[in-house]
Amino acid sequence: MGRRVRLGLAGLGRMGRLHAENLVRSPSIELVRVVDTVEEAARATGEQLEVEWSTSYEDLLQDPEIEGVVLVTPTALHAQMIGQAVGVGKHVFCEKPIALELEPTARAIEAAATAGVKLQVGFHRRFDPDWAAAAARIRAGELGDVHLFRSSLRDKRPPSIDYIAGSGGFFADVTIHDLDTARWMAGEIDEVTAVGAALTDPAFAELGDIDHAVVALRFASGGLGVIDNSRSAGYGYECSAEVMGSRATVRIGHHRLVHNQWLTPGEASVDWVVDFTQLFRQAYLLELEEFAAAIRALAAFVLARACDRSFRERRTVRLQREDGVQGVMYDVAEAV
Amino acid sequence: MGRRVRLGLAGLGRMGRLHAENLVRSPSIELVRVVDTVEEAARATGEQLEVEWSTSYEDLLQDPEIEGVVLVTPTALHAQMIGQAVGVGKHVFCEKPIALELEPTARAIEAAATAGVKLQVGFHRRFDPDWAAAAARIRAGELGDVHLFRSSLRDKRPPSIDYIAGSGGFFADVTIHDLDTARWMAGEIDEVTAVGAALTDPAFAELGDIDHAVVALRFASGGLGVIDNSRSAGYGYECSAEVMGSRATVRIGHHRLVHNQWLTPGEASVDWVVDFTQLFRQAYLLELEEFAAAIRALAAFVLARACDRSFRERRTVRLQREDGVQGVMYDVAEAV
Amino acid sequence: MGRRVRLGLAGLGRMGRLHAENLVRSPSIELVRVVDTVEEAARATGEQLEVEWSTSYEDLLQDPEIEGVVLVTPTALHAQMIGQAVGVGKHVFCEKPIALELEPTARAIEAAATAGVKLQVGFHRRFDPDWAAAAARIRAGELGDVHLFRSSLRDKRPPSIDYIAGSGGFFADVTIHDLDTARWMAGEIDEVTAVGAALTDPAFAELGDIDHAVVALRFASGGLGVIDNSRSAGYGYECSAEVMGSRATVRIGHHRLVHNQWLTPGEASVDWVVDFTQLFRQAYLLELEEFAAAIRALAAFVLARACDRSFRERRTVRLQREDGVQGVMYDVAEAV
Amino acid sequence: MGRRVRLGLAGLGRMGRLHAENLVRSPSIELVRVVDTVEEAARATGEQLEVEWSTSYEDLLQDPEIEGVVLVTPTALHAQMIGQAVGVGKHVFCEKPIALELEPTARAIEAAATAGVKLQVGFHRRFDPDWAAAAARIRAGELGDVHLFRSSLRDKRPPSIDYIAGSGGFFADVTIHDLDTARWMAGEIDEVTAVGAALTDPAFAELGDIDHAVVALRFASGGLGVIDNSRSAGYGYECSAEVMGSRATVRIGHHRLVHNQWLTPGEASVDWVVDFTQLFRQAYLLELEEFAAAIRALAAFVLARACDRSFRERRTVRLQREDGVQGVMYDVAEAV
Repeated sequence: MGRRVRLGLAGLGRMGRLHAENLVRSPSIELVRVVDTVEEAARATGEQLEVEWSTSYEDLLQDPEIEGVVLVTPTALHAQMIGQAVGVGKHVFCEKPIALELEPTARAIEAAATAGVKLQVGFHRRFDPDWAAAAARIRAGELGDVHLFRSSLRDKRPPSIDYIAGSGGFFADVTIHDLDTARWMAGEIDEVTAVGAALTDPAFAELGDIDHAVVALRFASGGLGVIDNSRSAGYGYECSAEVMGSRATVRIGHHRLVHNQWLTPGEASVDWVVDFTQLFRQAYLLELEEFAAAIRALAAFVLARACDRSFRERRTVRLQREDGVQGVMYDVAEAV
Repeated sequence: MGRRVRLGLAGLGRMGRLHAENLVRSPSIELVRVVDTVEEAARATGEQLEVEWSTSYEDLLQDPEIEGVVLVTPTALHAQMIGQAVGVGKHVFCEKPIALELEPTARAIEAAATAGVKLQVGFHRRFDPDWAAAAARIRAGELGDVHLFRSSLRDKRPPSIDYIAGSGGFFADVTIHDLDTARWMAGEIDEVTAVGAALTDPAFAELGDIDHAVVALRFASGGLGVIDNSRSAGYGYECSAEVMGSRATVRIGHHRLVHNQWLTPGEASVDWVVDFTQLFRQAYLLELEEFAAAIRALAAFVLARACDRSFRERRTVRLQREDGVQGVMYDVAEAV
Repeated sequence: MGRRVRLGLAGLGRMGRLHAENLVRSPSIELVRVVDTVEEAARATGEQLEVEWSTSYEDLLQDPEIEGVVLVTPTALHAQMIGQAVGVGKHVFCEKPIALELEPTARAIEAAATAGVKLQVGFHRRFDPDWAAAAARIRAGELGDVHLFRSSLRDKRPPSIDYIAGSGGFFADVTIHDLDTARWMAGEIDEVTAVGAALTDPAFAELGDIDHAVVALRFASGGLGVIDNSRSAGYGYECSAEVMGSRATVRIGHHRLVHNQWLTPGEASVDWVVDFTQLFRQAYLLELEEFAAAIRALAAFVLARACDRSFRERRTVRLQREDGVQGVMYDVAEAV
Repeated sequence: MGRRVRLGLAGLGRMGRLHAENLVRSPSIELVRVVDTVEEAARATGEQLEVEWSTSYEDLLQDPEIEGVVLVTPTALHAQMIGQAVGVGKHVFCEKPIALELEPTARAIEAAATAGVKLQVGFHRRFDPDWAAAAARIRAGELGDVHLFRSSLRDKRPPSIDYIAGSGGFFADVTIHDLDTARWMAGEIDEVTAVGAALTDPAFAELGDIDHAVVALRFASGGLGVIDNSRSAGYGYECSAEVMGSRATVRIGHHRLVHNQWLTPGEASVDWVVDFTQLFRQAYLLELEEFAAAIRALAAFVLARACDRSFRERRTVRLQREDGVQGVMYDVAEAV
């Protein structure tokens, strides 16, 4: 088993508390301290989980026993907090996205690389057993050439408009997960063509944002892809994908919390999960047990930006790609 | 295609009308005449389907163009009407059971055999594409040795008590289908052990009948079987089976009329058929296109009688079996 | 039931024979004659189905008893043959598309309208019970506002390159079905954005055609849509759709010929249909029993043309729409 | 969270190692020491999990810090080891069954009750989220009256004949789980009728044991039940149930480790779990976090014995039941 890795966590909103609960349950991690600028939030979680708590991020940075920090703070604070942690040699797990702009995102990744610490961004699908099993078999060549990739990510209900305003926009907040999955399962991307709409609330349009999108992809391999996203699926949370290859096709997706079927007159029904915390309980636990290479975050971020540009300029956006020391780097080329 | 076979039909209750509608749709059958002692019933169907109609069974028997009769009359009339048809050399399709007693059942089968006409009893499962496909693969040896057979037949709601009173009892009216399937898919039967209960209506108990049963089977091959039956499943009609073999296991059962899935908040639901006419539309059509050997009816009938005896005497009933000119014959041996 | 409608059929390739077999099984249709310029094909089907046969289309046109013709000839012949039939006052059922160009398509529809005869194009999905049931419930308002429409049509293997060469291109030959479904289930379309690729055979590229496509739609209602198509899914035939609304979501799709599940060590498997003739057996039968308004064919055809233009010009194509005497008419506007 | 409960574990076979791994992962338990009479087994697990290890059960009994013991030793040792632990005031979690005879089983339960320590027997289904959810809704009355209960427990392959010889017989080793579930979900049992067969290996018959069984139940409520069991299902592990009530029916069962569907030509397939350790990973973890009343073990044990008697004497066995201080007690009455 080895000695437990000692971590601190900053940010005790909904996702922060979920991560904290997973951390104290992990056999390979010791959660040393939780911090939140709201004292009541820090105390409540600290006392419930029986870990140290305080209101200052400095308490994590100054503790020599803490090897890494888990950042679940608002996106606007990510880049600066990453910089501080990296500066004192601590590894960082940060909820996506690193920042709302490309430049601070790239800078944070570079700082971590230079300091030789790990910077992992929370793409939880990569840690879910179902998704990982499919990816492994795809990599093993069971599908043959990939001709078509399809992925759906849909929330049951939109988050608050406050959250939306600071989210970095639909593509960077939602589609980024599907773009990461697309690269993971079907390879690098040459073109994106995005269509979007604000359908459920005028507040989205007032913010210049959308709540539904469809994105067509062209992969470097020549294959095509399609992503559909919604902030308001109504029936529940959806996270599914299909990869169609020349030799086989795989479908991924599991939306049940309880595996019972109820039969009532004329109908057979099963439950459907309401959000990602229900569906990815195990993935959230697993992702925190593995601090993996962070560079994938940057690639998906550039792709999300390109979707946004395609949507706004009403045209296909072509991408340039190069393999660098930090992994695959994307840049937005001019449309042909 | 060949010339259409000319048939007449007697008995225009619910099943009779369903058969009549199938007969006029069949490319290989010409429905010449329908009869029912109730003039209004005969006229209504005759005019709707544009076929001759009248109130006398004699009209079918005397018509030299009619090659066979389809009997959908009450069970109490079956044996006599079969005898009349066989006497004038007409083939007979008869809804199960032939009679409520063993002796007239055997006599009817023997008369048909002697006269050289076909006597087919309506075991519609044998004509359903799903069931037939499973049976064919079982016969081809894909399962290996059969270790366990399981079958469920359940109605959504009980029929009228009048129907129950003339039904010949639960085992002869309901279980007989599963017993026929058991022989078809897992071979001949050595022992039956039946347990029953009247749960939904005291009228069942007053008639000495039941509305639920569980029957354990021991096959001649050594394998075991289990049947469960209900007159009152509530959620809909159930007709499913499983055959577990040493090399593979097959599950049969399809209960949807429409193949749509509806997602509403927190739930995914599909439809469920309400009765056998919905589920076996195609089978009813197919069975009428094939007049097959009738002897199987007798075997299943004896087995149903043995279930009834096991249930009433609270003990396992052992069966004797011999292969005769009319197929496999069963007799009830004394329990060991 | 009424008198049987008397029809003739021209063209005895694979689809022609399938339609002919359905026609002789229909209780409401009498197939009077089949014709094919290849005498051997005409004789074989005529003798098998016991209907008149010959080699000249004129034999159908001149027969006063024939009320309508079913055209299953190559697309290049459709427009002319429709014109001839309409000219002698016969109704026409024609396999899609009417023609490869917009102008003769519109002319054929107008000629039929002027002559007062029906011209039905074979959009079989509209006649399939599963699809029709979903559409009916959508029209009844059960979904609320439609936010997202998704549809997949995929063939197991591509047809011959000869067929491809005369097919009118991928969008007019394949996507046209999904475009018709989109209009049927989610309403009129304002924008299409198409991406395509030739992945399985260089012959597609040589013909300037593709074998895979993804199309994003924007509906007049504001909702979004996505279509994916493949000529080479490998695993079988796929025909499925999903319509996501504000109150409920429906998923349509049924790909099994036999409803058995086979369990072998570590695996549960079911069958998957290989082509549309397996899946839509009932729909093909039903569509021939109903000659419905043909104008829908024109609308879907214009949409397919717009997809093609979007794909070739690498831009979103905006559509203009007007309600005319012949139903909804589309025209390709300039992209905004 | 509270202080972690300190436990010791005895017996490091397959199930023992699985429990030990779960114990070190539990946030509410501290595994203090593992013991096994085979030094190599004790050392291997102790070093791997970084816990104390030794070869003597006394080391657990004498450690004042250890509050409870987990017994995963051979059944023949259970009763004595429970007695020793109870004697020094330690709580006991013991794999089922407590003993192969009724008398030592009852004595062990009584000793624990007298000493005021918990004695929990491992009926893991009670701790599985799917099964617990169904049971909760049944208790809440959602099914109405229970008319039919059905349960299947099947192993993919039989265990070694050595294991069989010491297993206490098929009903006490396998059926006992379904009997416990039957009582949990459908209430107390009045009658059992069991049929069994040895089909896969003559060694079963030589031991007087069987490898397949069907058991019919009659519940005190009047409802019927049926259990089927196999030591050799071939395709994988099966653990499913159905409870049919007057208002609704629930089906429980989930047999997938990975939720991917693979499509290959003509086939769609999913995985199937191979044994109970795959399926009940979470249940095993949860059951160790809860030491519940043990008396349920005794009731199920008596029922298993009654099945055995019914099978051997070829007759239905009637049960007497009384509610005592230790919960529901069953006794075998004479058959009526």
